[in-house]
Amino acid sequence: MYDVAIIGGGAAGVSAAVTLQALNKTFIWFGKKELSEKIRKAELVRNYPGLPFVTGGDLAKALSSHVAEMGIEMTEKVVTGVYALGSHYAVACDKEIFEAKTVILATGVETLKPTKGELEFLGRGVSYCATCDGFLYKDKTIAIVCASKEYEHEAAYLAGIAAKAYFVPTYKTAAAFGEKVETVRGVITEIIGDKKVTAIRLKDEEIAVDGVFFLKSAISPSALVPGVQTENGHVCVDRECKTNLDGCFAAGDCTGRPYQYAKAVGEGNVAAHAAVAFLAKNK
Amino acid sequence: MYDVAIIGGGAAGVSAAVTLQALNKTFIWFGKKELSEKIRKAELVRNYPGLPFVTGGDLAKALSSHVAEMGIEMTEKVVTGVYALGSHYAVACDKEIFEAKTVILATGVETLKPTKGELEFLGRGVSYCATCDGFLYKDKTIAIVCASKEYEHEAAYLAGIAAKAYFVPTYKTAAAFGEKVETVRGVITEIIGDKKVTAIRLKDEEIAVDGVFFLKSAISPSALVPGVQTENGHVCVDRECKTNLDGCFAAGDCTGRPYQYAKAVGEGNVAAHAAVAFLAKNK
Repeated sequence: MYDVAIIGGGAAGVSAAVTLQALNKTFIWFGKKELSEKIRKAELVRNYPGLPFVTGGDLAKALSSHVAEMGIEMTEKVVTGVYALGSHYAVACDKEIFEAKTVILATGVETLKPTKGELEFLGRGVSYCATCDGFLYKDKTIAIVCASKEYEHEAAYLAGIAAKAYFVPTYKTAAAFGEKVETVRGVITEIIGDKKVTAIRLKDEEIAVDGVFFLKSAISPSALVPGVQTENGHVCVDRECKTNLDGCFAAGDCTGRPYQYAKAVGEGNVAAHAAVAFLAKNK
Repeated sequence: MYDVAIIGGGAAGVSAAVTLQALNKTFIWFGKKELSEKIRKAELVRNYPGLPFVTGGDLAKALSSHVAEMGIEMTEKVVTGVYALGSHYAVACDKEIFEAKTVILATGVETLKPTKGELEFLGRGVSYCATCDGFLYKDKTIAIVCASKEYEHEAAYLAGIAAKAYFVPTYKTAAAFGEKVETVRGVITEIIGDKKVTAIRLKDEEIAVDGVFFLKSAISPSALVPGVQTENGHVCVDRECKTNLDGCFAAGDCTGRPYQYAKAVGEGNVAAHAAVAFLAKNK
């Protein structure tokens, strides 16, 4: 069992990881090796102290180098759920389970609100994970809501399984996935269903589907961690980055504004120290 | 009138300054050009994200370069008091007054508790500022409690004014200031007086004095800012780094543990954003 599981590979996750490593704790860290897409895409960061006028790409490199120099490994498995089991936490990546005594959520923030019905039908037709749930839709009809070019390979994977897919990009793209896939230009206003998803609604039409995949970097913390307290989509934390769940901490954009690298690394550090204090107390 | 006065030149102050500069706010920044002594003396910092295994000296250089690249100036005047005047703040440097709409306290932390009687007799025989109050003790007897070699020139200045001085270093030194000055090896356990200071008490003796100067880098926030709420020597702040005083924010070590650079830059950033939000609201 790990001392800590860190969920998220942005600036807050990096800060938590390097601090836990310095403090000789065992941890598993879930994120993307290229660090969060948001960092890489930032044009110019003026106020990250010590790295003046750094581009997002160079900041991501500096953080990656730091992690590498400390010999820290990251796993790119997609976390599908974090469950408080009383004595410890289970972090699920589809059917694989990792156990940790504490959890630090550093999942970033969705800049868009969840679609109406998205959270309601999560696990009942709505999924965030192509590789986890794709096979459930073999020969069925799905919608694929895709937030970025980097998820197009997941879209292609889903398109290969489903009988029919509606590809709904939320960015500009000319991607095409063959005959079975119809690209829909527009915004889904609601996910409709009863016990399970039955359709998506757009401005002027409804399309019958069996499932909806949202392919995006940050998913709602309340969807990821049952029971964690949130407000306006942000995880509620105190000054020590503690959430309402014992042993569960949160850091970075997922705890609220300002969405800044300095604030994220600060909270990653504080959350790591709070986790270490929790471990010492509950030994 | 400045938008913001930043009190303190450590990592939290730097982070607040570069963020306020990026946000086009006017501010006056009080600190030491060599940045906080604590940073420079740190041996090796492993967990400041983006600057792996950096020495204190190199971290201080990186922060100084950042400040210089943004064209930010700092003043080395010693702040002797910060006063909430309702509509704005007065920052006193001895008799010179600077006015600002908001204040960010980034004063660091005293690792030692105040001496018994220190806060009680502040302004009634206890002083933190040699150049401000030294002349009050012309031809009188004083104690000089000195925390570091860097304050010895202030001790020498005081020794030149007083009739008799007791030099009480809290570090190892062989400094000598001539015949009028007696070096006392020991710890002051209490400052004694009635309306004003009359003596200092050490383990085995009492020494009659008219005044006591404490020469040290961080002074108690409650001594510096009348009315600010503190707990165990730390300024009480909420998640937005707000203190109990409207328009007064605090960041870095002065708000409490962990005493970490990442945490300090995070809070400096958050305090700067909170100050900017306050300014927008109270325009």
